[in-house]
Amino acid sequence: MNQFQVRTDLALETREKFEEDNVEIKGVWVEEEYREKSEIKITTMVIETENGAKAMGKPKGTYITLEAANMDCQDEDYHREISLELAKIIKKLLPRKEETLSVLVAGLGNREVTPDALGPRVVDNMLITRHVLKEFGKYAFGEDEVNAVSGIVPGVMAQTGMESQEIIRGVVDETKPDVMIAIDALAARSTRRLSRTIQITDTGINPGSGVGNHRHGLSEKTMGIPVIAIGVPTVVDAATIVNDTMHTLIQAMEENSHLKTLSTGLNALNDMEKYELIRELLSPQLNTMFVTPKDIDESVKRLSYTLSEGLNIAFA
Amino acid sequence: MNQFQVRTDLALETREKFEEDNVEIKGVWVEEEYREKSEIKITTMVIETENGAKAMGKPKGTYITLEAANMDCQDEDYHREISLELAKIIKKLLPRKEETLSVLVAGLGNREVTPDALGPRVVDNMLITRHVLKEFGKYAFGEDEVNAVSGIVPGVMAQTGMESQEIIRGVVDETKPDVMIAIDALAARSTRRLSRTIQITDTGINPGSGVGNHRHGLSEKTMGIPVIAIGVPTVVDAATIVNDTMHTLIQAMEENSHLKTLSTGLNALNDMEKYELIRELLSPQLNTMFVTPKDIDESVKRLSYTLSEGLNIAFA
Amino acid sequence: MNQFQVRTDLALETREKFEEDNVEIKGVWVEEEYREKSEIKITTMVIETENGAKAMGKPKGTYITLEAANMDCQDEDYHREISLELAKIIKKLLPRKEETLSVLVAGLGNREVTPDALGPRVVDNMLITRHVLKEFGKYAFGEDEVNAVSGIVPGVMAQTGMESQEIIRGVVDETKPDVMIAIDALAARSTRRLSRTIQITDTGINPGSGVGNHRHGLSEKTMGIPVIAIGVPTVVDAATIVNDTMHTLIQAMEENSHLKTLSTGLNALNDMEKYELIRELLSPQLNTMFVTPKDIDESVKRLSYTLSEGLNIAFA
Amino acid sequence: MNQFQVRTDLALETREKFEEDNVEIKGVWVEEEYREKSEIKITTMVIETENGAKAMGKPKGTYITLEAANMDCQDEDYHREISLELAKIIKKLLPRKEETLSVLVAGLGNREVTPDALGPRVVDNMLITRHVLKEFGKYAFGEDEVNAVSGIVPGVMAQTGMESQEIIRGVVDETKPDVMIAIDALAARSTRRLSRTIQITDTGINPGSGVGNHRHGLSEKTMGIPVIAIGVPTVVDAATIVNDTMHTLIQAMEENSHLKTLSTGLNALNDMEKYELIRELLSPQLNTMFVTPKDIDESVKRLSYTLSEGLNIAFA
Repeated sequence: MNQFQVRTDLALETREKFEEDNVEIKGVWVEEEYREKSEIKITTMVIETENGAKAMGKPKGTYITLEAANMDCQDEDYHREISLELAKIIKKLLPRKEETLSVLVAGLGNREVTPDALGPRVVDNMLITRHVLKEFGKYAFGEDEVNAVSGIVPGVMAQTGMESQEIIRGVVDETKPDVMIAIDALAARSTRRLSRTIQITDTGINPGSGVGNHRHGLSEKTMGIPVIAIGVPTVVDAATIVNDTMHTLIQAMEENSHLKTLSTGLNALNDMEKYELIRELLSPQLNTMFVTPKDIDESVKRLSYTLSEGLNIAFA
Repeated sequence: MNQFQVRTDLALETREKFEEDNVEIKGVWVEEEYREKSEIKITTMVIETENGAKAMGKPKGTYITLEAANMDCQDEDYHREISLELAKIIKKLLPRKEETLSVLVAGLGNREVTPDALGPRVVDNMLITRHVLKEFGKYAFGEDEVNAVSGIVPGVMAQTGMESQEIIRGVVDETKPDVMIAIDALAARSTRRLSRTIQITDTGINPGSGVGNHRHGLSEKTMGIPVIAIGVPTVVDAATIVNDTMHTLIQAMEENSHLKTLSTGLNALNDMEKYELIRELLSPQLNTMFVTPKDIDESVKRLSYTLSEGLNIAFA
Repeated sequence: MNQFQVRTDLALETREKFEEDNVEIKGVWVEEEYREKSEIKITTMVIETENGAKAMGKPKGTYITLEAANMDCQDEDYHREISLELAKIIKKLLPRKEETLSVLVAGLGNREVTPDALGPRVVDNMLITRHVLKEFGKYAFGEDEVNAVSGIVPGVMAQTGMESQEIIRGVVDETKPDVMIAIDALAARSTRRLSRTIQITDTGINPGSGVGNHRHGLSEKTMGIPVIAIGVPTVVDAATIVNDTMHTLIQAMEENSHLKTLSTGLNALNDMEKYELIRELLSPQLNTMFVTPKDIDESVKRLSYTLSEGLNIAFA
Repeated sequence: MNQFQVRTDLALETREKFEEDNVEIKGVWVEEEYREKSEIKITTMVIETENGAKAMGKPKGTYITLEAANMDCQDEDYHREISLELAKIIKKLLPRKEETLSVLVAGLGNREVTPDALGPRVVDNMLITRHVLKEFGKYAFGEDEVNAVSGIVPGVMAQTGMESQEIIRGVVDETKPDVMIAIDALAARSTRRLSRTIQITDTGINPGSGVGNHRHGLSEKTMGIPVIAIGVPTVVDAATIVNDTMHTLIQAMEENSHLKTLSTGLNALNDMEKYELIRELLSPQLNTMFVTPKDIDESVKRLSYTLSEGLNIAFA
């Protein structure tokens, strides 16, 4: 059994780790689709059993990952093809309702730290309708069916002295939406995934995840309403990057004749011992650090449009 | 009886209007102090009876106004002498408590509209302690008595789809502070008062006031805890400015021999008719407009430091 | 001759004033077009002679005004029909060049004061290409003809200690663009025009205009290259609003039988005397104040997209 | 000779590397002072000869480093004791002048990327006086001697299409200041140094340094006036962190009996080979990534006050 902890918010990466280690996980069902024209890969993973949840370290539910290599590239209409796919996925996960659906969009994260500003900036771009609907009714929009969209940017604990969870639960109790959408920046394991992957899940957000780690759980259990979480990885943990490179060093040693003698020594260590060795070498300060691209400002700006557009289409 | 509506959030200006018109109001008690050294004038007004409240158009309670002509001037330590006076006033209004007092500071208004950004910017500068106290206890601060300060910037309805009141009541219900401080930008009647006056009241905030008019009541009645409102006027209603200049025109006519003939005609109108005349002349668009100084960005920046420092001192 | 000073940055409004007063101006040529489908009115005014320039109080040159009643309304693609018309007008005014045209876009105004933030926010949204072209050549864009676009946000004097003109002239001398586009928020005379009119002129920007009045001239004369100025009115001078309402009062007096007696008196005054009367009544503080709509944040956000899109299309 | 490249903007760290490797550098003179009361360590390093410059990879000149372990801690007056020391150092480096000294402060870096926003935010907090002095003379300040301070935030190439150097040289040519102060966020080698060190140098800023690497040289040579550069490290290169941990791994192998066998193998590699090995293992993407603390927003906010206050005191 592998003891290396994989610090990632992406269910996809957790599963990949198992595949790398040739471990089969029961109770997890996966399906992949590829949209030729838009070059988007969609992976649907369903964790069906408690055993699957335990193995994956993530709650039971559906995790949909949308990958597009060019998501981070500049594009005149902010990758509307991705927004459209995203809207379809969201619509599938939304609860069915005859009448107006009331949706609260929560933009988690710290607006003042660039890679953590994704959630707040998505809410900035949302088409907010709840107050207009409340005052003028749905005829204000000249359409038959309009949903009531509200938005909240709770900030982070250093700014408010409160947990996001406390603020949002208060707002949910007071305004009673039918469903909540939580937008957040995620931590990935691989730098390759940064700004190129969207994860959508009906399990909400669970403790210990996210860039700033600023959240307790936001799920149907804690909120009393369905919570759909949408996230994009914008950082990698500093410790993860070092960890991974070490791992690559060890692998290189085993393959490189020049380093053959070394590998024997290192292989004498079991995985647990290797893990401990690396832990010792890592500066404790690394745990409070993250790695992010130098042009993260441009990525977050673009991604916030792609996501808000997807949400606007889904709720229109 | 005077029918001209005075659109002001300052109790002081409401009362001045009565004095101008030589109307005595019963049930309202006023006391003035002047701090020689710091050149600060403090006016305490107590509306004691329901009749007084009706006449003033403001709820029963204490209204303290702090005026300083140089408040808007640049100053190395952001007018610490004003912050100190403000702290004293707030302390007097805070509920007594043996143990740690838990305070929620709400920064009302629209961060994106300069004169309305005062509330949000005060919260930005606050020393937030609730989360540290909760995690490490008061010994984290190396002091005997520390208060638990939390902060919220609810935004405005166009951004959130919710009323500030809804968001704040949710947060209050969830986190149960002992007292709430609501910071807001106000509308004055006179441009002379802009950025030079602070109003502190234990009546909270009441419908129809404020720059953006974005709030329903925030008071002990609606929140279930004492609400101290602190405001600084940063705008004058466009309609008010036109109204006032008209009024001055009429007065000028009565005093100017050259215009004597006119005044006779205008005087033939009673106040009600004058009011109607002015109403007709005012463009309806003016009601959605405000007047503010061109250097309002500097004023709001400076004022937000003076206010947050006063709050930090009061809660230390 | 009329002595009432019309404080407006819009050539269109200056001319309207003459029409109101039934004064004919020579040397000024006007043509109006109406786009049925997009409901856009385009007025081209050419000041041809020095006499015309003197009468208008504006330099010789072309002033094109684009008016659309719905420009300030929310729109899914930020009024692309307006961006397209704007692009056509800009293209006509741009100097002809066989090779790559090098364009410097200057976003004038104060980013921290909402109605004055239009210029900076347009530059934020621009597609900047000069550095890519310089490094990789035009083939980086996979197109035959690409223009080199650079952008500068000079800030205002209170922030930099320098005039915008000084900063921009330095940048022009150093980087030698072929043409400069100056974007600025303007002051209109009528609140009706706010956020609904775009003025494009090949005369650049001339002293005394603009919201913050923060600029000396930016024109071919001072910069040594053609300067196209693009502006949208976002404020009305506080003094103008009062002035106008007074004017309306006087007119009302003449038409209203009830007030007939008054009008006789006022009419006894000539225009010069009326002007002096109003000047006296206006608080001197009003000159440092402006009037702007309460939802100016939304307008500026939307307008900055409409304008930047127009520029991006023109330079593509 | 050591081939591991130390990527750091701090002269102090470059020298430490030599000490670690027991290499003596000639032509570099160092002096250390310690302020007991304020717990500030000041290291003055003078690179005196071309040989010293070559060895250090930095131009001849004076490099002063101010270190304070608590610089990154919250403090009521933003560490005024550090601002005072900083002011003393700056004053020593400023050119002597009988009359008013004219100073241009340039805030380098990208305002939109948190750890790179230090320069822009310092300029935001500066007391700007040039325009007041120009309009009203020095008597406006009621003091005998006042310096003329101006400020510029040039932005980064992706925003402007121009190099900071081009913009600043244009402004210098146009406004002719006596001296320039360039503020920038730096890259350190050690996470321990982040937000706890200020480097002041009279050599200006030289190619290849800084967070975003967004600058060509800003020095007396390129600008024609003395350039004092002030920087604080806010990031570590992602590659550096991995590099360093590898280095620690190798050291650990040599010291740990358990891993003794390994060390023999690795030691068989010379430094050059180790460097190549690590290079191969590092993902190429790491070169476009940086490592920064999760609470960098608070650090940059606080540091920008400490620095601007130091500058304000120095120029008062």
